[in-house]
Amino acid sequence: MQKPEHHIFVCSSFRVNGNAKGVCQKKDSTNLIQYLESEITDRGLDALVSSTGCMNLCNNGPVMMVYPDNYWYGNVDEEAIDEILDALEDGKLAEDYLFVS
Amino acid sequence: MQKPEHHIFVCSSFRVNGNAKGVCQKKDSTNLIQYLESEITDRGLDALVSSTGCMNLCNNGPVMMVYPDNYWYGNVDEEAIDEILDALEDGKLAEDYLFVS
Repeated sequence: MQKPEHHIFVCSSFRVNGNAKGVCQKKDSTNLIQYLESEITDRGLDALVSSTGCMNLCNNGPVMMVYPDNYWYGNVDEEAIDEILDALEDGKLAEDYLFVS
Repeated sequence: MQKPEHHIFVCSSFRVNGNAKGVCQKKDSTNLIQYLESEITDRGLDALVSSTGCMNLCNNGPVMMVYPDNYWYGNVDEEAIDEILDALEDGKLAEDYLFVS
């Protein structure tokens, strides 16, 4: 296999025991991941999506990190995903959704 | 908050519904995360650890990605973690555990 050009991590609030709880889960992060994956396929982006356990960034949740670019986005919804992927295709940041620069 | 110098992701096999199943979980990835976090604290490394859902890299599991460095390690156990963190402190790769270069 080859490393993807982008590896996108979305907080899904899993606790260590596997329970999905917390803010990001309540804000529908599971459906966000499905939306993100379908958008990546539609756009033909070379990006891998992984869910993560709770990152203790709940005030900004759902959060989404794009590596190795090192972009940290917060309060992500479907509109945010559209803007973030638009920017990624152009090699840019979606500044409106950054919560750590 | 500030971004950490290293963000380390460890596959913990969570499925979308939150169940922790699969190879990495069976190989004790939950305890690995605790070991990794205690080693990071002991060494004073600026590194954040997050668990991830199944990455479909089970043949190489448990897997561990270090970003933004973009190092992908496989078959990780406590000995591997020691070598990987030793290398990270020296700004190097632990080549024995890379499964994608």
